[in-house]
Amino acid sequence: ISHSLPLQADTQGYWLIVNQQRLYWPEAQHGLHFSRMAELVPLFGEPEQSGALGEFEGKPVYYWVVNDQRDDEENWQNPRQLLRYGDAVFELAARAVQVALFMQTHRFCGQCGSAMHLVSWELAALCHRCGHRCYPRIAPCVLVAVVKGEQLLLARSSRHKAGFFSILAGFVESAETLEQAAIREVKEEVGIDIDQLEYVGSQPWPFPHSLMTGFIARYVGGDIRCQPNEIEEAHWFEPDALPEVPPVQTLSGQMIEQVKQQIAGNKK
Amino acid sequence: ISHSLPLQADTQGYWLIVNQQRLYWPEAQHGLHFSRMAELVPLFGEPEQSGALGEFEGKPVYYWVVNDQRDDEENWQNPRQLLRYGDAVFELAARAVQVALFMQTHRFCGQCGSAMHLVSWELAALCHRCGHRCYPRIAPCVLVAVVKGEQLLLARSSRHKAGFFSILAGFVESAETLEQAAIREVKEEVGIDIDQLEYVGSQPWPFPHSLMTGFIARYVGGDIRCQPNEIEEAHWFEPDALPEVPPVQTLSGQMIEQVKQQIAGNKK
Ligand SMILES: NC(=O)c1ccc[n+]([C@@H]2O[C@H](COP(=O)([O-])OP(=O)(O)OC[C@H]3O[C@@H](n4cnc5c(N)ncnc54)[C@H](O)[C@@H]3O)[C@@H](O)[C@H]2O)c1
Ligand SMILES: NC(=O)c1ccc[n+]([C@@H]2O[C@H](COP(=O)([O-])OP(=O)(O)OC[C@H]3O[C@@H](n4cnc5c(N)ncnc54)[C@H](O)[C@@H]3O)[C@@H](O)[C@H]2O)c1
Repeated sequence: ISHSLPLQADTQGYWLIVNQQRLYWPEAQHGLHFSRMAELVPLFGEPEQSGALGEFEGKPVYYWVVNDQRDDEENWQNPRQLLRYGDAVFELAARAVQVALFMQTHRFCGQCGSAMHLVSWELAALCHRCGHRCYPRIAPCVLVAVVKGEQLLLARSSRHKAGFFSILAGFVESAETLEQAAIREVKEEVGIDIDQLEYVGSQPWPFPHSLMTGFIARYVGGDIRCQPNEIEEAHWFEPDALPEVPPVQTLSGQMIEQVKQQIAGNKK
Repeated sequence: ISHSLPLQADTQGYWLIVNQQRLYWPEAQHGLHFSRMAELVPLFGEPEQSGALGEFEGKPVYYWVVNDQRDDEENWQNPRQLLRYGDAVFELAARAVQVALFMQTHRFCGQCGSAMHLVSWELAALCHRCGHRCYPRIAPCVLVAVVKGEQLLLARSSRHKAGFFSILAGFVESAETLEQAAIREVKEEVGIDIDQLEYVGSQPWPFPHSLMTGFIARYVGGDIRCQPNEIEEAHWFEPDALPEVPPVQTLSGQMIEQVKQQIAGNKK
């Protein structure tokens, strides 16, 4: 749905204003704010880039990229802080920052160094010199919940504080399936072999442009050996004695909840 | 596994030589060819880029990028022509052309236009001026097999010859789930609503860098209306009267086979 057509001052809709991967969302604002474009010009100047982003409750949603230093730090939020407004708002916010990032990182052609131009009928950047065409990047990732009998494997990554655990995650590499990526990541990060992968679902994760896909898998063999510098510790946990884990707004949080229920169901 | 460390002349392994998205694979060659790097220098000169790609039957596999005009056209194959050597060879071939494409399209920084540099410890390109870092692109796609009672929806895209049909396909957009992409693509391409999406599997598809994910879905409502310029025709087919469809080496071919068997199973 997204495109980069220039918009008119009297365009009405929901506006997502993006600056450096953050959205204009003052503390007092609850939900999306409907307005005419002209009302926002005094606040942000003319948009550097704007275009359609999708729909919310039957009304159009637009993005608007602002690229300057602003001194109202407190009014700009990371999309992660908007997870609490529900999936629909989070996904529009995610799309807005990804469109802005796409434009910011495709000003020049990676192949020949010339200026890139936005295509008007689809969200793409094109080099008029060598013909190289780029679409917004999406980095597919896997999340893997490894189950062994009635226990779930959780790990603490080096980026997380003591006491905070999650299931394993990693980026898919070129020319591998999601399933191969899941098997490789679990082996690399904790030295364990898995099988019986069961797909659970997917979630866009705009930090900066991941697409999470989730699998529940069964333990086959191996002892836990944590990858240095990546995984601080990893253990098998009973579902009724879990440490602090990601919230249920994240796919990893949802998968941990699902495994808890699966194990509880098997016990009955 | 892939990286871009320079290799030594006495390095032994399987070599995948890439030029313009094609692989050196003379007609007489069956399977991968094991050799020392030095043996290949008389044929191809010193490699512009080379590095590790993975393993095949316990032995290392390397890529080697050649970037010049060659007059032995017949010795260079598209990875699609290597599908018949099985998944393992196809995936290595796919990885080789994707690594080469990554290097070719990340010579300059998309953000600031400076020269990019390859990182040695991971497969990434880094701009020393603005810090922009890029990984090989992977474009996630969905394949959707829509089932209505005992019939399967197949469509002929404008790129295919008369009589050749397949299930629906499309690229995932920023900030949508795989499932949302599947629902959107089916609606856009044939005007039909679906639900009960069931994940089937995934397949890397290096043309140039897609990652296919497959879903079987149930018809909910709507009449077939083909998207102009994209879909020439679409019909409901009985499993025992299918038109020409993709081969079983492709995920779409495998999904069509799976639906045939599901429907046959339901009939019994
Ligand atoms: N939504 C969720 O529930 C959830 C949960 C866990 C992780 N995640 C996300 O999953 C992703 C992967 O998790 P992680 O812990 O491995 O991440 P990470 O950010 O620790 O990345 C690990 C390493 O992978 C490399 N890398 C970065 N981007 C890459 C890319 N596009 N392709 C290939 N390699 C890349 C870098 O060397 C990086 O240091 C991150 O985006 C993370 O935010 C989401
Ligand atoms: N392995 C299989 O079984 C199988 C079967 C069918 C299709 N495919 C692959 O699936 C992909 C999608 O199929 P299709 O028929 O929609 O393709 P297509 O090549 O007809 O693309 C349709 C349009 O999407 C746009 N596009 C191209 N790359 C994009 C990207 N990275 N992100 C967003 N938009 C992009 C372009 O406008 C293009 O014209 C292709 O790569 C195709 O080769 C694989």
